[in-house]
Amino acid sequence: MRPTAPVRIFTAAAAVHTLAGPDGPRSGAAMAELGTIPHGAVVVDDTGAIAWVGATSDLPASFADAEIIDCTGKTLMPAFVDAHTHLVWGGDRKDELEMRIAGADYERIFATGGGILSSVRQTRAIDDDTLYAQSLVRIERMRRAGTTTFEIKSGYGLELAAELRQLRVARRLGADFRVRTTCLAAHAVPAEARVSAAARAAFIESICAEILPAVARANLADFADVFCDRGAFDVDESRRVLLAARALGLGLRVHANELGATGGAQLAAELGAASADHLLYVGDAERTALREAGVVAILLPGTSLVLGKPYADGRAMVEAGVPVAVATDCNPGSCAFENLAMVLALACYGNRLSPAEAVCAATHNAACSLGLGDRVGSLKPGRRADLLVLDTPDVRDLVYHAGSPLVGQVWQDGLRVA
Amino acid sequence: MRPTAPVRIFTAAAAVHTLAGPDGPRSGAAMAELGTIPHGAVVVDDTGAIAWVGATSDLPASFADAEIIDCTGKTLMPAFVDAHTHLVWGGDRKDELEMRIAGADYERIFATGGGILSSVRQTRAIDDDTLYAQSLVRIERMRRAGTTTFEIKSGYGLELAAELRQLRVARRLGADFRVRTTCLAAHAVPAEARVSAAARAAFIESICAEILPAVARANLADFADVFCDRGAFDVDESRRVLLAARALGLGLRVHANELGATGGAQLAAELGAASADHLLYVGDAERTALREAGVVAILLPGTSLVLGKPYADGRAMVEAGVPVAVATDCNPGSCAFENLAMVLALACYGNRLSPAEAVCAATHNAACSLGLGDRVGSLKPGRRADLLVLDTPDVRDLVYHAGSPLVGQVWQDGLRVA
Repeated sequence: MRPTAPVRIFTAAAAVHTLAGPDGPRSGAAMAELGTIPHGAVVVDDTGAIAWVGATSDLPASFADAEIIDCTGKTLMPAFVDAHTHLVWGGDRKDELEMRIAGADYERIFATGGGILSSVRQTRAIDDDTLYAQSLVRIERMRRAGTTTFEIKSGYGLELAAELRQLRVARRLGADFRVRTTCLAAHAVPAEARVSAAARAAFIESICAEILPAVARANLADFADVFCDRGAFDVDESRRVLLAARALGLGLRVHANELGATGGAQLAAELGAASADHLLYVGDAERTALREAGVVAILLPGTSLVLGKPYADGRAMVEAGVPVAVATDCNPGSCAFENLAMVLALACYGNRLSPAEAVCAATHNAACSLGLGDRVGSLKPGRRADLLVLDTPDVRDLVYHAGSPLVGQVWQDGLRVA
Repeated sequence: MRPTAPVRIFTAAAAVHTLAGPDGPRSGAAMAELGTIPHGAVVVDDTGAIAWVGATSDLPASFADAEIIDCTGKTLMPAFVDAHTHLVWGGDRKDELEMRIAGADYERIFATGGGILSSVRQTRAIDDDTLYAQSLVRIERMRRAGTTTFEIKSGYGLELAAELRQLRVARRLGADFRVRTTCLAAHAVPAEARVSAAARAAFIESICAEILPAVARANLADFADVFCDRGAFDVDESRRVLLAARALGLGLRVHANELGATGGAQLAAELGAASADHLLYVGDAERTALREAGVVAILLPGTSLVLGKPYADGRAMVEAGVPVAVATDCNPGSCAFENLAMVLALACYGNRLSPAEAVCAATHNAACSLGLGDRVGSLKPGRRADLLVLDTPDVRDLVYHAGSPLVGQVWQDGLRVA
């Protein structure tokens, strides 16, 4: 650890949204409390950590030698945290996009060998360096749009070697980006395991006895995830995979209730998962279970837009006291969006979060769902200096002017990256 | 006119989407024909016009002295044309945005003095320079996102002096941006004209006999527009205003069928308007009328997203042979979106245009609706050099990766503006 000294002062911002407050994911009215300091300043030290946050008029004189970044008329806020992506994939599925617009259904495309299995074929077919290069283009665009922390899932391998390759590439991206990885070997049943019930059972057994242990041994994943839904894995199969992952020390995430009320949300609550994601089809029972278990509900409104599905009822989730996060779901099929600021706006228009709630959902709460709430997602002394300078004095413009080029500067660990 | 010489060559692009083809708005299958040249190049002369378009391998040797812009791996296409904006306004209505997300209805907000009348108060209260400065911030962001041509409506004055001021500011923006202006004095009935039927009639009379003639005399507008819908102006009132405008030599546009099937689309067809805009509530009869009259249907999917309304059925419009354009509707209340590339993606997901159709809708067809199809919206010799360099070889990424920072360079009249 180098000695710390103030090296950079972001000063005179119209507003600093610190997201300071209690540790752990926020729920209810606390989601809209952004810990805002008007006319604020943030000081970053030479280790890339935040050294001081406060009103510009209170800046200590001892910081006088630091480089000044004038933020007059601008907004300072934590950089975005994207808590649900599949961004390491091979090839693309733009043809499916055009088929869907012309009227084809996502589940039908999947059943005919398109969908996830198409990406599995394209991902298995390329080597590590090609997969890294294709993924790097995407993650760089995502960071240019304001995200510095990424959850990245596997799940386009669906066999040991290809799952390990996806996770290796994700870890390699972690050298330049803040990355948490998730083994999603239970993303879909691969073609070769669809020939019989025995082959399906053997695939699930291989996830539990072979893939997850190998992933854990190589320290390639922080979490495991299961697509618990119609056409994927049922609750018993999902529980088996998640229990195997938990025994290996992995955190748990669940693709839940995207296609129907199929039990995934309750399973996430039962196992105390870090997150339950999608949640289009939930009612009071699911919301109560998630709240009582402290599971973060991750909303993915881009996917609803792309697939023409309903938006998850984020308003009801907030009112029920469930901590809510928002993420892109960036993946080759159902939503390849990379701009989390735009998805934050969709969470307001679609999921009916308020702009302030959506900011919390895309920063602090997302970070908490990844076990990184003490590192990023808020601007407090000791946190990493991952922050955004917005070219507007009003953070609500991220919603009001959704999609506009408002993210003027992106800083990661105290260094400017965009 | 200066002598023309090739001064700049955009070369080696993965694809040049020229939108070359017949003059006039395109409909049906022609909307998806982007006139694409693989491995293409575009040459711009010193008047800011396009001098040559073709395959890079066919570039004439006589252009050898020009500045080279290497577009390897990139896409060239016409800059966007935003054919429906209200971008000159005072103040904002972000509080209403939060009220709507919390459950308030747009028409109810309007009835209680919010909505358009709130912007009227805020716009009347500021002077020309303040109005210009506030509008400039927005139009600069819009251009940074890829739009160089803008239709700008008045309609937040609703009295002679304030309508003239809005249009003067729009013309002033026209010094740096390509602007066509529209007098929308019939945007709403102002508070002072709501006291009696006589006051309402007097307001409509003042539009026809005072405001429109003054606007035409000062050459402040190219078009007139009417909000022909529930809660605004009925068909007879709208016809009266549009006929007065036509007699003054103005082109016609109509806000039609946004809130109900209230006759605006058929009125646009009856009068041969340049465009009918919104069109959420239309059936076969309206589509047939628009097609036969050659009216461009302008879809505004951002507004549907913001207000939680249905999306206009763009697919049916294309299949019925109506020429379709897409625009932001950028306005302070129902949709303050500035990024037409993102709205183009919404037109695919919401209105169900294909990516290629949406590109035509946001360039050539939009230009035609403004009478500018022979100037911008396509890349042909003689057209103005308003073009985009996309940081991707595949234009469908504007939809697939909606919202991503893909517009790498924006050129207007042969000069780089972003």
